[in-house]
Amino acid sequence: MNAPSPFADHILPVLPQPYLVFLGDTTEPGYAKTAFGLRDWARDMCVGEYACSPDAVSAGLRAMTPAEAKAAGARSMVIGVANPGGVIPESWTAALVEALDSGLSIISGLHMRLKDSPVLREAAARSGQKLIDVRVPPRNIPVGTGRKRSGKRLLAVGTDCALGKKYATLAIAQAFKERGINCDFRATGQTGIMISGGGMPMDAVISDFEAGAAEMLSPDATDDHWDVIEGQGSLYHPAYAAVSLGLLHGSQPDVFVVCHQPGRKTILGLPDFPLPTIEEVIALTIMLGKRTNPDIRCGGIAFNTSDLSAEQAEELMARESERLGLPVADPIRKGPAFEALVASCLGDE
Amino acid sequence: MNAPSPFADHILPVLPQPYLVFLGDTTEPGYAKTAFGLRDWARDMCVGEYACSPDAVSAGLRAMTPAEAKAAGARSMVIGVANPGGVIPESWTAALVEALDSGLSIISGLHMRLKDSPVLREAAARSGQKLIDVRVPPRNIPVGTGRKRSGKRLLAVGTDCALGKKYATLAIAQAFKERGINCDFRATGQTGIMISGGGMPMDAVISDFEAGAAEMLSPDATDDHWDVIEGQGSLYHPAYAAVSLGLLHGSQPDVFVVCHQPGRKTILGLPDFPLPTIEEVIALTIMLGKRTNPDIRCGGIAFNTSDLSAEQAEELMARESERLGLPVADPIRKGPAFEALVASCLGDE
Repeated sequence: MNAPSPFADHILPVLPQPYLVFLGDTTEPGYAKTAFGLRDWARDMCVGEYACSPDAVSAGLRAMTPAEAKAAGARSMVIGVANPGGVIPESWTAALVEALDSGLSIISGLHMRLKDSPVLREAAARSGQKLIDVRVPPRNIPVGTGRKRSGKRLLAVGTDCALGKKYATLAIAQAFKERGINCDFRATGQTGIMISGGGMPMDAVISDFEAGAAEMLSPDATDDHWDVIEGQGSLYHPAYAAVSLGLLHGSQPDVFVVCHQPGRKTILGLPDFPLPTIEEVIALTIMLGKRTNPDIRCGGIAFNTSDLSAEQAEELMARESERLGLPVADPIRKGPAFEALVASCLGDE
Repeated sequence: MNAPSPFADHILPVLPQPYLVFLGDTTEPGYAKTAFGLRDWARDMCVGEYACSPDAVSAGLRAMTPAEAKAAGARSMVIGVANPGGVIPESWTAALVEALDSGLSIISGLHMRLKDSPVLREAAARSGQKLIDVRVPPRNIPVGTGRKRSGKRLLAVGTDCALGKKYATLAIAQAFKERGINCDFRATGQTGIMISGGGMPMDAVISDFEAGAAEMLSPDATDDHWDVIEGQGSLYHPAYAAVSLGLLHGSQPDVFVVCHQPGRKTILGLPDFPLPTIEEVIALTIMLGKRTNPDIRCGGIAFNTSDLSAEQAEELMARESERLGLPVADPIRKGPAFEALVASCLGDE
């Protein structure tokens, strides 16, 4: 994940790295997923962490002030925590202004835009630093064309939202790189964008340009190059399927991996909607995906087994792999099953 | 189409009617589709037409100045013509300012926003009139929920874009009303919105809210009420399928009508993409649509036979109806085939 930005030769913006990770005054670890994601997947891009309360959660990075982070080479401070409603609370303002005045830009994935704060706009203008809202897509997204692009692409799809597509694709991209494969992780959500330093916030794109945005995210590449594209939503999600289909059509994947959390029976937050089966997701993804890539195939299944013991997980994944005739692995637990999944994605027998 | 606005009790905005139709200095009838649509489907809402050049196209309405239109009861001037690029040319400015100063609001479906013109903003402020860009969706669109709503819904789907979904649904809504059925046409594109006085510009909605926007467009209604919803794009369109799927999921239609232009072999503007067959569109619409309405069914097929003679069209539609086992009709030509299509949509045997 620590290669030079894949976006350097590209029209998408590049985030100023390395980062200082901001934890605010957030005490609930569930709201610090971005900070933990940065720690897990972009640690070499994080010089340290900064909180504005002694009770705040920690991502286990070295604590430092914005001035110390600047001296250590940081170019921006990333807001690594969310809070209910996605607003920027008053209690953070002094720390954000301090960072700007210390020579760091601010990067946010919150719903509320940094640029909507007059205080921050003024501090940014005074310090010459940037306010970067990664949920705001670029202005120059074209309408999709469906044109076949060179290079290879892998896309994560899912039985639902929020069950591990980002971690699965980050782990697969890492495994590809460890095998010496020329590969880029392509982020489609705000945390992924912060981790990789660029990407496309697919859920914030105007629907007419959704497939075009996905085409822009994974441009023509050399024949041996892989784009490993973070998935979004589910084709079976009654609210978000439009995002998933635009991403599928525009990504024109050669291979997809189905992400699933065993034990989840209904769509998150929508108990009247049963989760689709893995077989249904495979069949529908092939049916729809072949519109822009007739050779699309399923590389295997990524399970999020965080609720299970190691033995339970291993037993379940072996049984499901046998039943489906495809590799099933937990990208966090890794192991031989994950190696088989990676090999299957690459088409190695 | 001339009933009181269906949006009066609704959160969507209502356009000020009746209209003066503005034709600018446009000489090419192909660019006057909005004006012709208003003439054909909202004639009672149009007091007249106004051009700023003697060479401009005519929609056959009574020519009058903005001041005369105001005196005749008009509340707004609708821009009824487009031009390449969707910009508002300098040559229109004086006429638009004249309309504002005469006490008419301006309604536009062009890409360039009226509110981006300082001259128009100033004239609107001076005259107390509104600048209404119908391509701009409302700000309060919620995320979709998939919750089953009361009342009945019909949606147009298509083998492609631009082959008659708007005219088909307008004709079906008109036929429903002629049968005494409690019914509203629900517009999803700019011309439809101008015709009906309200609606949702589905292709301009942020993708995360696409299904939610469709849910907002056809709210709970009485059990005997029908929403007849204008379709957008095609599930098989490599650029616009996201719009079509969000609209399908959010509309949760009981009945859909497949719109098709006989003779069209490939997607408009994308000659590498073969048109799907009607049977493919029926099967995929049912497969995806049943996620939010398990009882979804195909009511029949609407053909755009404008390229064929009356005999050719009749012969082809009879043959296709036999082959598909469903009514096939041209909603512009009407006749017994169209009556059969309307009856099938209503579930009358």
